[in-house]
Amino acid sequence: MEKITENLLTKVIRKRPANSFKGTYGKVVLIGGSQNFGGAIIMASLAAVYSGAGLVTTITNPTNQSSLHDWLPEAMFVDDNQFDAAQSIVTAANVIVIGPGLGTDQHALSLLKQTFALAKTGQVLVIDGSALTLIAQNNLALPKGPLNVLTPHQMEWQRLSGIKIANQTTQKNREVANQLGAIVVVKSHRTQVYVDNQVYENPGGTPAQATGGMGDTLAGMIGGFTAQFNNKSEAVLAAVYTHSAIADELAKKQYVVLPHQISEALPTFMLQHQGANQAE
Amino acid sequence: MEKITENLLTKVIRKRPANSFKGTYGKVVLIGGSQNFGGAIIMASLAAVYSGAGLVTTITNPTNQSSLHDWLPEAMFVDDNQFDAAQSIVTAANVIVIGPGLGTDQHALSLLKQTFALAKTGQVLVIDGSALTLIAQNNLALPKGPLNVLTPHQMEWQRLSGIKIANQTTQKNREVANQLGAIVVVKSHRTQVYVDNQVYENPGGTPAQATGGMGDTLAGMIGGFTAQFNNKSEAVLAAVYTHSAIADELAKKQYVVLPHQISEALPTFMLQHQGANQAE
Amino acid sequence: MEKITENLLTKVIRKRPANSFKGTYGKVVLIGGSQNFGGAIIMASLAAVYSGAGLVTTITNPTNQSSLHDWLPEAMFVDDNQFDAAQSIVTAANVIVIGPGLGTDQHALSLLKQTFALAKTGQVLVIDGSALTLIAQNNLALPKGPLNVLTPHQMEWQRLSGIKIANQTTQKNREVANQLGAIVVVKSHRTQVYVDNQVYENPGGTPAQATGGMGDTLAGMIGGFTAQFNNKSEAVLAAVYTHSAIADELAKKQYVVLPHQISEALPTFMLQHQGANQAE
Amino acid sequence: MEKITENLLTKVIRKRPANSFKGTYGKVVLIGGSQNFGGAIIMASLAAVYSGAGLVTTITNPTNQSSLHDWLPEAMFVDDNQFDAAQSIVTAANVIVIGPGLGTDQHALSLLKQTFALAKTGQVLVIDGSALTLIAQNNLALPKGPLNVLTPHQMEWQRLSGIKIANQTTQKNREVANQLGAIVVVKSHRTQVYVDNQVYENPGGTPAQATGGMGDTLAGMIGGFTAQFNNKSEAVLAAVYTHSAIADELAKKQYVVLPHQISEALPTFMLQHQGANQAE
Repeated sequence: MEKITENLLTKVIRKRPANSFKGTYGKVVLIGGSQNFGGAIIMASLAAVYSGAGLVTTITNPTNQSSLHDWLPEAMFVDDNQFDAAQSIVTAANVIVIGPGLGTDQHALSLLKQTFALAKTGQVLVIDGSALTLIAQNNLALPKGPLNVLTPHQMEWQRLSGIKIANQTTQKNREVANQLGAIVVVKSHRTQVYVDNQVYENPGGTPAQATGGMGDTLAGMIGGFTAQFNNKSEAVLAAVYTHSAIADELAKKQYVVLPHQISEALPTFMLQHQGANQAE
Repeated sequence: MEKITENLLTKVIRKRPANSFKGTYGKVVLIGGSQNFGGAIIMASLAAVYSGAGLVTTITNPTNQSSLHDWLPEAMFVDDNQFDAAQSIVTAANVIVIGPGLGTDQHALSLLKQTFALAKTGQVLVIDGSALTLIAQNNLALPKGPLNVLTPHQMEWQRLSGIKIANQTTQKNREVANQLGAIVVVKSHRTQVYVDNQVYENPGGTPAQATGGMGDTLAGMIGGFTAQFNNKSEAVLAAVYTHSAIADELAKKQYVVLPHQISEALPTFMLQHQGANQAE
Repeated sequence: MEKITENLLTKVIRKRPANSFKGTYGKVVLIGGSQNFGGAIIMASLAAVYSGAGLVTTITNPTNQSSLHDWLPEAMFVDDNQFDAAQSIVTAANVIVIGPGLGTDQHALSLLKQTFALAKTGQVLVIDGSALTLIAQNNLALPKGPLNVLTPHQMEWQRLSGIKIANQTTQKNREVANQLGAIVVVKSHRTQVYVDNQVYENPGGTPAQATGGMGDTLAGMIGGFTAQFNNKSEAVLAAVYTHSAIADELAKKQYVVLPHQISEALPTFMLQHQGANQAE
Repeated sequence: MEKITENLLTKVIRKRPANSFKGTYGKVVLIGGSQNFGGAIIMASLAAVYSGAGLVTTITNPTNQSSLHDWLPEAMFVDDNQFDAAQSIVTAANVIVIGPGLGTDQHALSLLKQTFALAKTGQVLVIDGSALTLIAQNNLALPKGPLNVLTPHQMEWQRLSGIKIANQTTQKNREVANQLGAIVVVKSHRTQVYVDNQVYENPGGTPAQATGGMGDTLAGMIGGFTAQFNNKSEAVLAAVYTHSAIADELAKKQYVVLPHQISEALPTFMLQHQGANQAE
């Protein structure tokens, strides 16, 4: 099992070419945030914007519209009761993130199924939080077209993979990840990423991160990174590393790190770890 | 009467074990915030999250949903008209905080009674603000199961205990606290904490704190501290001490200290007063 | 015509007595903020809280509830369609501020008339913005009981006093102020305060303040200062001085000063200009 | 083709005369922000206020009221379903900005047509975003009275001018700009401004700006600058220069620059580049 190293960051986070525009950095659509869990999709959206995605649209329960814009006037809003009318936005996206605060009711399931039906080759589909629970509960197959990225914590991975937490060995996890044909980020004290038949361990992470919303922020970051950077596998690894590296830095001064603080620290951290010019 | 000392903080605020997750730091449910007093439950929730509680859910009037998430995307929201559907969340909580901005109408009384009916052994129940008034007005008995923590100011304590402010001696207060079987935090210029048949005086506190919302913030902090730290009596004492210690620090530069500023200062203050590793 | 001097501040802004509580620093009720002008009452409320008022309640259009709490969880909210139910709050106030963003429609007029009917001896009534226009339009008499403080800019003063801007001499203004029996703050490049048959000129003020909301902030500060400090005339003068002194300070680094920045600077400024202990 | 230089800033951004008031710095009305694109008009309004406009009113979808005031209590709000009742506000404005987040549905088209019908000589009309698309789609003629300022990106300019992006030479662009009788800001990596039969190139700009909302912020700044500064052509050029100069500065520390950060940096940047006293 290989460790993700800081060197990866300069490889992934390339200096932006001078002659580029917002379209260069991708369109991310985030779907989630029921009335009870609106904060989750806000935190994920915040992470996508602050990691540099070109255009971000958030499809969520309408009661979350004001809060979304209070944090993020930069994001566009779609009422998730009007998902039909938003199909062209989903289809035009480079990356779809579904799950943060989505909930597990029939409406959530319907949104997930519609998204799976729309997702297609060339897109990245990040599946997080309640969306993972819905897949397990309903035995949903992952869509064939897109590059699927799953971000379960250990219990969600148990539900998805059928492997109990105590038995989640690298070997077994890799087998299921391969069967799923997906990049799998198993979140824990030392997060593991299963990608291209390899396993990477994230060396960072602090117990100061042990608070609600951390996963939502990571999902949004993976959305933002894969929207911008060409090598999707490396983009996922770099997002995982960056998430905990920022938390480790903040934890030098804080007993607890709030998820939104990680997003707000992204622009500065990313510049500090920027590599040479991105090939145009 | 003993004074709470700074030494207590390193004893209570332990270095977090590396291998921990949000569940390790407890689930806090806060109930309050009518349409008129929504800010109170927001301030209490802010304090719970910024003191490091693992997962925070706020049950409040639906008109407060946006404001809650504007301050705190990290908190989950439940409409207090749907308290029935939220029973499992209340039951699963480690700590329940009820009262900040709850109001004293029939709906508030109903929420209080339902909460009392659900609260059970193993839980901490922090009772603050209007909830204390409702208990006095309606002669409600405290629930038997949970560890009850009451946080009255002197007038609320008069209503609850029947002891007039002028007569609130340590001796009399202790007797009633013992009868109630509760930890009682009598808030004043020099707050006193009645716990385990002892009385502790808080040495700190500044008149710069004399502004609306301070008590709500303390209630939320007690929620956050008791959710994380094993010795509940000491956790209450440490929260009381920390609340005024931060205020004293801020008052060196401010004529008035705003309650939300205390919450925002918590992560840094707590790290500075962190003790050795928490036993795992 | 005397100038207000910095010396006045240490005389007014007294060190708070250790043994005090939020009731010591007064209850302020602010009334204003139609659907179109909600920001005005938010800015006024912000100024009242950040200048140290003990308890602040804002009576406003219900569409402003969320924004109020986003800026200020410390304030309580009342729907201005339920003014009847809030009569006891108005009656219990030490200071009432009416006018910021109130508008001039029938509903606004009704709120103003009801407030005038409730205001009584011992209270300070700060009348600002649209409330002044309504008085002029409807020939309303000021209420007899309270200490009335009017804060017109020059055009509003013309409407109220009948004196055209070009003719607004110290002598004429003083005569009308005396007839009104009110403290009158005539806002301009060099604001004048008519109080106790005297005229004071404010030496400060910067064109960086020439932006919407400055007057609302001043009205809220007068509310906060008169709620806390015993000598009401001096409290008004100190609020006027402090408002422009902070702006002058901020204008050293900014081409334009935003009103909310003045409020946020209040706690630090006030501590720096705090005098000896307030008599208890 | 001339470059805009920093020297222009001190010529445009004049020291404010001491004896001035908010009316001196103009009234700006911004129209835009459908339910889906509310953030755009918030960002534009933020830019107008922070660049120093005297009074700012935002006409937008009512679901954006709270978010607008959360960012900007300094702005006044009008429900865009009540545009009729706001005609006097539009007529009294010095500058009208229409387009950010306006959308392209029938309601948007109606708002655009009504605005065109009201706009008159002496006013500046900044036309941005979806308003440009609507003009192209519906072959609308620009209104005759006002000074029209168009701010298309290259694709919007293609739609408007009929010149494909690859063929957008200085010569061709100038011809169409002259025919339109408008100032045209063609936004790209190196933005060009067509004004008074001349072409100016903006030397600044960074790929860190390649994110949604940058254009909305520029439109609001052009609104704020033309409201305050007498020479409208130079005011547009100075706004374009300032927008990217601030971004370049922020990009020294950030991988991505958020649009709202540019607005928040305006007051300090403008003071640093302020010239001698503005002629009164």
